[in-house]
Amino acid sequence: MAGPTTSTATATTTAGAKGRVLLAYSGGLDTSCILAWLIEQGYEVMAYMANIGQEEDFEAARVKALGIGATKVFIEDLRAEFVEDLVWPCTQANLLYEGVYLLGTSIARPVIARKQIEIARREGCDYVSHGCTGKGNDQVRFELGYYALHPGIKVIAPWRDPAFFERFPGRQALLAYAAERGIPVAQTAAKPWSTDENLYHISFEAGILENPDTTPPKDMWKLTVDPEDAPNTPDRITIHFQNGKPVRVENAADGTSETDPLALFLYLNAMGRKHGVGRIDIVENRFIGIKSRGCYETPGGTILRAAHVDLEGLTLDREVRRLKDGLTQKLAEIVYNGFWFSAEREFLMAGVEHSQRAVNGAVKIKLYKGNVIIEGRSSPTSLYDEKIASMDEAGGFNPSDSEGFIKIQAIRLKAYVAQQQQIAKHK
Amino acid sequence: MAGPTTSTATATTTAGAKGRVLLAYSGGLDTSCILAWLIEQGYEVMAYMANIGQEEDFEAARVKALGIGATKVFIEDLRAEFVEDLVWPCTQANLLYEGVYLLGTSIARPVIARKQIEIARREGCDYVSHGCTGKGNDQVRFELGYYALHPGIKVIAPWRDPAFFERFPGRQALLAYAAERGIPVAQTAAKPWSTDENLYHISFEAGILENPDTTPPKDMWKLTVDPEDAPNTPDRITIHFQNGKPVRVENAADGTSETDPLALFLYLNAMGRKHGVGRIDIVENRFIGIKSRGCYETPGGTILRAAHVDLEGLTLDREVRRLKDGLTQKLAEIVYNGFWFSAEREFLMAGVEHSQRAVNGAVKIKLYKGNVIIEGRSSPTSLYDEKIASMDEAGGFNPSDSEGFIKIQAIRLKAYVAQQQQIAKHK
Amino acid sequence: MAGPTTSTATATTTAGAKGRVLLAYSGGLDTSCILAWLIEQGYEVMAYMANIGQEEDFEAARVKALGIGATKVFIEDLRAEFVEDLVWPCTQANLLYEGVYLLGTSIARPVIARKQIEIARREGCDYVSHGCTGKGNDQVRFELGYYALHPGIKVIAPWRDPAFFERFPGRQALLAYAAERGIPVAQTAAKPWSTDENLYHISFEAGILENPDTTPPKDMWKLTVDPEDAPNTPDRITIHFQNGKPVRVENAADGTSETDPLALFLYLNAMGRKHGVGRIDIVENRFIGIKSRGCYETPGGTILRAAHVDLEGLTLDREVRRLKDGLTQKLAEIVYNGFWFSAEREFLMAGVEHSQRAVNGAVKIKLYKGNVIIEGRSSPTSLYDEKIASMDEAGGFNPSDSEGFIKIQAIRLKAYVAQQQQIAKHK
Amino acid sequence: MAGPTTSTATATTTAGAKGRVLLAYSGGLDTSCILAWLIEQGYEVMAYMANIGQEEDFEAARVKALGIGATKVFIEDLRAEFVEDLVWPCTQANLLYEGVYLLGTSIARPVIARKQIEIARREGCDYVSHGCTGKGNDQVRFELGYYALHPGIKVIAPWRDPAFFERFPGRQALLAYAAERGIPVAQTAAKPWSTDENLYHISFEAGILENPDTTPPKDMWKLTVDPEDAPNTPDRITIHFQNGKPVRVENAADGTSETDPLALFLYLNAMGRKHGVGRIDIVENRFIGIKSRGCYETPGGTILRAAHVDLEGLTLDREVRRLKDGLTQKLAEIVYNGFWFSAEREFLMAGVEHSQRAVNGAVKIKLYKGNVIIEGRSSPTSLYDEKIASMDEAGGFNPSDSEGFIKIQAIRLKAYVAQQQQIAKHK
Repeated sequence: MAGPTTSTATATTTAGAKGRVLLAYSGGLDTSCILAWLIEQGYEVMAYMANIGQEEDFEAARVKALGIGATKVFIEDLRAEFVEDLVWPCTQANLLYEGVYLLGTSIARPVIARKQIEIARREGCDYVSHGCTGKGNDQVRFELGYYALHPGIKVIAPWRDPAFFERFPGRQALLAYAAERGIPVAQTAAKPWSTDENLYHISFEAGILENPDTTPPKDMWKLTVDPEDAPNTPDRITIHFQNGKPVRVENAADGTSETDPLALFLYLNAMGRKHGVGRIDIVENRFIGIKSRGCYETPGGTILRAAHVDLEGLTLDREVRRLKDGLTQKLAEIVYNGFWFSAEREFLMAGVEHSQRAVNGAVKIKLYKGNVIIEGRSSPTSLYDEKIASMDEAGGFNPSDSEGFIKIQAIRLKAYVAQQQQIAKHK
Repeated sequence: MAGPTTSTATATTTAGAKGRVLLAYSGGLDTSCILAWLIEQGYEVMAYMANIGQEEDFEAARVKALGIGATKVFIEDLRAEFVEDLVWPCTQANLLYEGVYLLGTSIARPVIARKQIEIARREGCDYVSHGCTGKGNDQVRFELGYYALHPGIKVIAPWRDPAFFERFPGRQALLAYAAERGIPVAQTAAKPWSTDENLYHISFEAGILENPDTTPPKDMWKLTVDPEDAPNTPDRITIHFQNGKPVRVENAADGTSETDPLALFLYLNAMGRKHGVGRIDIVENRFIGIKSRGCYETPGGTILRAAHVDLEGLTLDREVRRLKDGLTQKLAEIVYNGFWFSAEREFLMAGVEHSQRAVNGAVKIKLYKGNVIIEGRSSPTSLYDEKIASMDEAGGFNPSDSEGFIKIQAIRLKAYVAQQQQIAKHK
Repeated sequence: MAGPTTSTATATTTAGAKGRVLLAYSGGLDTSCILAWLIEQGYEVMAYMANIGQEEDFEAARVKALGIGATKVFIEDLRAEFVEDLVWPCTQANLLYEGVYLLGTSIARPVIARKQIEIARREGCDYVSHGCTGKGNDQVRFELGYYALHPGIKVIAPWRDPAFFERFPGRQALLAYAAERGIPVAQTAAKPWSTDENLYHISFEAGILENPDTTPPKDMWKLTVDPEDAPNTPDRITIHFQNGKPVRVENAADGTSETDPLALFLYLNAMGRKHGVGRIDIVENRFIGIKSRGCYETPGGTILRAAHVDLEGLTLDREVRRLKDGLTQKLAEIVYNGFWFSAEREFLMAGVEHSQRAVNGAVKIKLYKGNVIIEGRSSPTSLYDEKIASMDEAGGFNPSDSEGFIKIQAIRLKAYVAQQQQIAKHK
Repeated sequence: MAGPTTSTATATTTAGAKGRVLLAYSGGLDTSCILAWLIEQGYEVMAYMANIGQEEDFEAARVKALGIGATKVFIEDLRAEFVEDLVWPCTQANLLYEGVYLLGTSIARPVIARKQIEIARREGCDYVSHGCTGKGNDQVRFELGYYALHPGIKVIAPWRDPAFFERFPGRQALLAYAAERGIPVAQTAAKPWSTDENLYHISFEAGILENPDTTPPKDMWKLTVDPEDAPNTPDRITIHFQNGKPVRVENAADGTSETDPLALFLYLNAMGRKHGVGRIDIVENRFIGIKSRGCYETPGGTILRAAHVDLEGLTLDREVRRLKDGLTQKLAEIVYNGFWFSAEREFLMAGVEHSQRAVNGAVKIKLYKGNVIIEGRSSPTSLYDEKIASMDEAGGFNPSDSEGFIKIQAIRLKAYVAQQQQIAKHK
């Protein structure tokens, strides 16, 4: 395999002799062991934690990393840029992978990788490292981000390095190593699935979920209440968009009005959580060619997408909408596969942005036990013409025109019928 | 323009002197007046009613048509062929128009037009006629079907003929004409919207719905209970598919097991109705270039589509799924626009059918207050490999392979970065 | 139908009483008769001629139009804007209809319609008019342009008005009318086909070409020499591009260096003409649903497209190229069908433009008896990396990476094989 | 890396102790050294040569392989199946990669791999091996074929194995090894480029061609005469198609009539060669993410594709043609990338095959100095209707219908104009 990973086979030398690594650190068992192991291999290690809205005791993690031997710890609040730079453009594009998945993990990676590379450059790191497995999508997403932003960077992926994964074949080996190295381990029992969380969503996979016919247990879900336990009374909110981006959320009943992007999004999350909105359970196709089963909760994102799609119905030209919908299926693949920092993503986004000039207005939404119900929409830049749409008045529309329209459309069909008869004879 | 419509200007001659018309008759005010008017214009008129599952007193309509002067009345039960020839293929294709609409009106038209042409041929009719307006999609769908199945047929569309629409500018004029001709009129007050119903769905449009910001009134909805009024206890059913078509629905709780296509679909409808599943409210793009607002209820179809999409996650190859999803966006447009009997629909369906050989298995579903919740899925022809998907075991997967995979993917991205720098310099 | 066309049935009243018309005038028999007939119908008529590079005696046509009774004649040199506003963007997009046709007629229409509407507004015209037939594409292209640029404009299309086309069923009737009205007619015999010419191309259709199996006669072709008669000695030129637009053409042999857009394009035309480049003969699909046979000569455009496509090979990212190629197939349809002034054309062009920042450099071309032979290309913003492409040196490429890449790609194929076996068993 | 390749590091043991390998053998220096080296590593090696029409002394190669130590040599004439199973379907699909390349190397790989796997199974081989480099497309194409047809097979790719490529860093090292092992080497000097040849095409790449601005030398081209040296007199041939496949080629001038697939194709090759048809020179995108420069000659294939595309103009429905053209761009990528034996190729081909029922008829072609000139086409299942296409007669077409058609098309454009004004105000 060459490069850094194989050379790690040769053991402990002078501290940091092999160079400086910036490790994406979570505070959990895996990356704590990786941190210790990298130091043991002769690297100087700095730890980097991105706050993208996950539930985490960042300060405890800082202490832990320093305790293990990190020379520096960087904790970065990326929540606002995550919302503005990633969530908003994906909302404009209505991104959805394989018809169901809102890409909550995929779109967190670029914002994490970008800051990691920024710090690595600033701190003169030779390497970046992460704790992703060798079978998943995240290794790809992180590393394609790293390479695109810093083509010369070297990557250490311990879970793909036999020197690491053969030494730590399972959780027990990691626990033993942690004990040996004095790494504190949370006393809570490990859950029979793994999760990844940020302010946009949480994912559940592996463990008992690996059988795609197993119904996820009720206590697995975390970011939303069970629709069966949600309030019997709906809430009604209105989302205002400007150029396809949400600019205000209102709840007339309680006087809420949020305009700050992060606050606005967190309010949608709170509403979605309360009403059990945004749970899915799918078998999806990983970039790596494997099918995997995942469960996801995306409360605010689900509401936001429904509202944006609806407003495009009112404001986007029919043909633009079709072209855009075709492109964004492709864009979802690109983002899922980890190509955020790519020529093709930029190319497709150029079209998306152009289309969004028209997407202005407000969408009225009722939230009730898992349902996002559109109750109306309006726009200052609507393409809807009540007069021409009306079945009751002519509105400048001459019904006779339709006759010519239909007859012209039929020409091709009639020719095809005649051809089919010729084909039948010709056989 | 030409042909039948303009020549209708010249008034009542010998009964039936102008030829024989087969009129698609609904029993309502509009087509009853059209029936009387066509006779008045000198046509012999036969009436044709398709039973596609709408709520209707067919026998009362038969008596009414004969009373007005129809020389024959044909009432055809097309429900089974509607389910098997239209609903099943569209389920295989996951058809959805503009991301939301299940095409319930669109797919009824081909089955109605096909039988109408069959009868028109058999009965020696010179014309077919319908009561569609000149602004809608249905005129197109009916007539493209007519022309494709019988290129020589002539069509009378009174709502596009000034001789008709100028004489009957509104409901009052029709009522007056009905009174004059002794056509019985239902005593129920007209609703402030119009509907179109079949066993797959019901649509609501026009009237008060023409303002896209108006929330539909609670009493408008007909085929489903309001999710707020649905049972507090969910139902659980399992749908079994063979080659992408549903072949059995089971409800273990009450011992239900339906296998007959029509019965199976009606059972899904009953379940969907009970749990408030399948309501939507959208602004859509008509073929005619107008945006219109429609509300739809598709209870069984919504459940069926969710299950089928889910099973494809387990059984369809990733690349096939993407290609198919791209094609079926186009297919939905084709079907929406009325091109069921076309070369392009056949072409796309050839691919869809090929793909469905793999779509076998069962999907477990929970229905609860508007939600269709997937609880698990299994297949004898699954592409999911639990061993290789597992995060806990290697399962024949060599993590080192991912390293090469990622590095190869990054080559293109690195070249692009270098190019961007050149472009910046070059400016 | 309504409006101007049917009301024209009522004959000659006060001169110009019906309003002012701006007629797209060619100087030929058809539009001269239309000009006379419109005046006869009671319109005031102004004549408009666009110089888009066709062979024409514009001053003679001016005299003729005034002689027939036009109150004003506008002759506009649109050649430079045709090249810069239409030919250049279409070159950037590599536009090609149905794999063969360079859209030479289609792209002339927007530039003609734009100026016609500009003049019609300025001169206070109520109507615009043209001499296109009712079966072709050009009526659509002109009128969609008119309506998009001036939604309230009214259009008179005599060849779709029975009052006109029934009165003039053929050339003889037009000649008789011309004689009666004293309209001078060119003494040259009419050719057994019709043509449309501009600086980009010439089209031939109708007449003897209507049999698609008839070989076009040698003397039909006009803008290029027959490849069999072209010089035995090739010419070599180099085209330089900046942002996908040609900015310089050089011929080292004779010292030519053209940088002005119009001059540059005309030089390519001269070179293409000399070497017999750019003839095609196809059966194409009209927007109106009819197949028609057309022959075209596009000398300069053929050279330009070949060079641009080649340079994109060197400079466009692979995925961008594929996305762009998919979009521009659609874009060619949009332009062919007459939707230049549309939301969808703007949407697609936004992506195209974004991509062209990279398309800089020079392409070396040999022209010889109908062939456009690429002899080399270079770019300051190339994506080609000679070192990494080399088969002889590693160039930073680790061959082992390919092994992982391939094995990952194979995972999906292996799963499919296993599935096929299950499907076979399952049947 | 794992598996066979790294374990080869441990040197010569008992002959054949490591298992049996079926090596794709060419008779050249590389695969001869690989053959010797594999034996040296402890494998039993059988040699396999596919005759796909390349210029080769197969019997000399057999003697050579046996001399080096192959235990068996298989020489298989795959020419007919190459034409019928690969060239014909690709002709039906009009396959073209990146707008220019006819995929001549890509489509040879599946037929070679298929027979190699068939023999490997029959002879009980544990491994297959090939001499492809680690940077190219062919390694991918071969191995994806191997894995798809025999998921359990193991692959030895010496040029990706450091044990091999570090030992043989260049041609000199291979020559030295050949000398040492007594492997005979052709006395002809190596050309400054590498080639790959079959009956469909020849490719040239590497060496002096690695500079994309270098014009290929005249003596490089092999399968066609230089257009400048081609006859001054054209030839005219007619190709007859049935279901999109060529079934007869005729040359009336010399009485030729070929119907056997292989003979028919070889005749097209001969004609193409004579008239200098089918040379291209491009910078293309490899699957591996690298741009590379290639020159290709595809004489018969170029003629065949031009004829088939033309006949589709006459016989394919417009919308089918567009859908098919969109799909076949994707299909070309799939085939180029080596996914012939894949779910997605089968899926797309299902649609292609369906479309070809209509593609029957004859195309008349003139060949002259590099040009393939279509001179006419006819079909018993044509969609062309001379009467309706005619500009001179109505042919059942009512010009008034076009008016309605255009006005309906304009509705959307007018709405967009109004929206643009609102957007401008709204800013």
